[in-house]
Amino acid sequence: MSDLRIVKGGVCAARGFRAAGVAAEIKYKGRNDVALVVADAPCAAAAVFTTNKVAAAPVIYDREIVAGGRVQAILANSGCANACTGERGLRDARLAALTTAGELGLDPRHVLVASTGVIGRPLPMDRLLAGMRAATRRLGRTAAHGLAAEKAVMTTDTCPKEAAATATVGGRQVTVGGMAKGSGMIEPNMATMLGFITTDAAVSPAMLRRALGLAIARSFNRLVVDGDESTNDSVFLLASGAAGNCEITRAGADFDAFLEALMAVCVSLTRQMATDGEGATKFVTVTVRGARTAKDAERAARAIAKSPLAKTSWFGRDPNWGRVLAAVGYSGADVVDMKAEVFYDGIWAFRRGEVADAAQLGRLARVLRRRAFEVVVDLHLGAAESTIYTCDLSLDYVHINADYTT
Amino acid sequence: MSDLRIVKGGVCAARGFRAAGVAAEIKYKGRNDVALVVADAPCAAAAVFTTNKVAAAPVIYDREIVAGGRVQAILANSGCANACTGERGLRDARLAALTTAGELGLDPRHVLVASTGVIGRPLPMDRLLAGMRAATRRLGRTAAHGLAAEKAVMTTDTCPKEAAATATVGGRQVTVGGMAKGSGMIEPNMATMLGFITTDAAVSPAMLRRALGLAIARSFNRLVVDGDESTNDSVFLLASGAAGNCEITRAGADFDAFLEALMAVCVSLTRQMATDGEGATKFVTVTVRGARTAKDAERAARAIAKSPLAKTSWFGRDPNWGRVLAAVGYSGADVVDMKAEVFYDGIWAFRRGEVADAAQLGRLARVLRRRAFEVVVDLHLGAAESTIYTCDLSLDYVHINADYTT
Repeated sequence: MSDLRIVKGGVCAARGFRAAGVAAEIKYKGRNDVALVVADAPCAAAAVFTTNKVAAAPVIYDREIVAGGRVQAILANSGCANACTGERGLRDARLAALTTAGELGLDPRHVLVASTGVIGRPLPMDRLLAGMRAATRRLGRTAAHGLAAEKAVMTTDTCPKEAAATATVGGRQVTVGGMAKGSGMIEPNMATMLGFITTDAAVSPAMLRRALGLAIARSFNRLVVDGDESTNDSVFLLASGAAGNCEITRAGADFDAFLEALMAVCVSLTRQMATDGEGATKFVTVTVRGARTAKDAERAARAIAKSPLAKTSWFGRDPNWGRVLAAVGYSGADVVDMKAEVFYDGIWAFRRGEVADAAQLGRLARVLRRRAFEVVVDLHLGAAESTIYTCDLSLDYVHINADYTT
Repeated sequence: MSDLRIVKGGVCAARGFRAAGVAAEIKYKGRNDVALVVADAPCAAAAVFTTNKVAAAPVIYDREIVAGGRVQAILANSGCANACTGERGLRDARLAALTTAGELGLDPRHVLVASTGVIGRPLPMDRLLAGMRAATRRLGRTAAHGLAAEKAVMTTDTCPKEAAATATVGGRQVTVGGMAKGSGMIEPNMATMLGFITTDAAVSPAMLRRALGLAIARSFNRLVVDGDESTNDSVFLLASGAAGNCEITRAGADFDAFLEALMAVCVSLTRQMATDGEGATKFVTVTVRGARTAKDAERAARAIAKSPLAKTSWFGRDPNWGRVLAAVGYSGADVVDMKAEVFYDGIWAFRRGEVADAAQLGRLARVLRRRAFEVVVDLHLGAAESTIYTCDLSLDYVHINADYTT
């Protein structure tokens, strides 16, 4: 029996971690933009990075560090992505990591860096390093410290995002906690998203990588905001081992219990990111079932979630199911329209050739007024199913992205 | 030497065709919504249809008719797509074609139907057929008749779209003329677009198909508005032979001259559709060159043209080239960011690691204020090149598509 519990907190929920967030004027005045997460000792570490071939300097730098399997600190900033910055960007990322290690007295091979913000601008190193130094003096273990760090990685996010869960692993209570930032540029294989997850479970680097891969496949990688994929996406997972459980080194009940807690944190952060998608007014869960193959289900669900026409219809509270079915039609998935059904929160809009009449459209319109709803397409061609989390495309999305300036 | 000339007019520019457009209240009052294009005799015909697996009833019906190679009339309506309407939709499409043939005294195997508008609503057959009958009484050969037909196929288009060109083929002057409607849901393999092209050249059905395929590959299929692909896209080409040239039955100088005129008409209509993309404030030509392969060039150019982040930056008049390069990065194309260059109308924004400074950004900002500009990415990895025509993503796009209701 699982004893998974959702608890409060973020990166400081697990034992063995301190955090801080400070305002360093990386781009704006008066808002936190430099964060530090520091473990009491080197942790087992795993990370997943963007698959974008234009990877930002911190991603290139971190890949090497994470390959070592041990991490003790992460320095993160918002306001500047340090992407498309060439050799200078790589030097800056390295210098930021080494200076942080020096300031904290850590092994420089155990420090990661993460950046988010505008592409193509050099990091303002003086401010970043001054912010880092200020952050080292404010490190603490409380929820407020975690919250300060969460705020420092926000860009167009409208609220900080954190989640935590506990589970019993090998007779010990372990905690997984995390923070993330969204919110545009979110699509297959992550997002302009950064995720920082900590746990006090003892887990080998290999099993930590496996757990993170499994959790991400069912959470962050199922999120679509606008179909763009960023140069900076990274999710980090550090395991301090402070819970004192016997180290998880293979599959089994302990791994499953840990994975369940990790999954709960990742799914919660994913839902928070979709709900806070740029300009989003709706959280929409898109499920395609009855597909001939798993690939078909996935393609169809992603096509719906990415369709500007479907997304604007949700914003307009319009049960325009034809756009949903049209997206399935061009997704590459097998579809026979006269066999298909479309539902909004269980209310049918189209079923095997029968289209919603005025009364039924009225019922659907009430669903579309909800802050969150589910769109289900049943293809009735097989047994495969896929779910994607997404949001609508609103006027504010355009406002935000037309004005978020270089 | 080519003697291609761009001339005025639309579907009535070529000899042997009459057209009409009338208001039949298919969806709205007081605007043309039923069009007829009628040839004096059966024409050689070719057509290209949507690849969307959810194809509308008229598309399914027309595929069979066009396979016969001869067409004399096309009945078109806006306001209702007759898509996702099942058996009833197919019966309605057939009935509309047969009734039109009866009214005009034509072979029923020579009549096509085309619909555009909301998906999932049955065609209002009484109004459609009444409109068709009214249209038969107003058929004429003037530019005004062509314009009336153009207006009848508009949906969210803000202006009618026509183009015509002449060329000398086998010593005779031949004319190609056409009309089209855009404007959202436009992506690979066409659009919510309908194109009707007529010519008085004598061309065999086989060579007509070949010419249309070649012309579309370089025009309509290079257009991206929002990345959605419609259920109704169709382009029709009818050749009356009234110019009296020796029928084109194989490749050669005559075919090339005809193709050049056809291409000019298709490219002009494509540019008009991009410029009139839903809510568009900018016409943007995206060219990726120096790609390793043609497929890479194509993928990268399409990714840029579809990227909501790039498109909103154009709307915001923001030279945010980082979003352009990020789109290339996730397109699947090979890219080495430190070798790449990004230009807006020839002004560089990023070149091999060097980023635009404030003065250069000022120059770029002036380009972004233009109504039309070109974005060029040179990957410096090979010799392949691809161009896509597109537009920005504006507040009005969201307004239009949130309000364009089921």
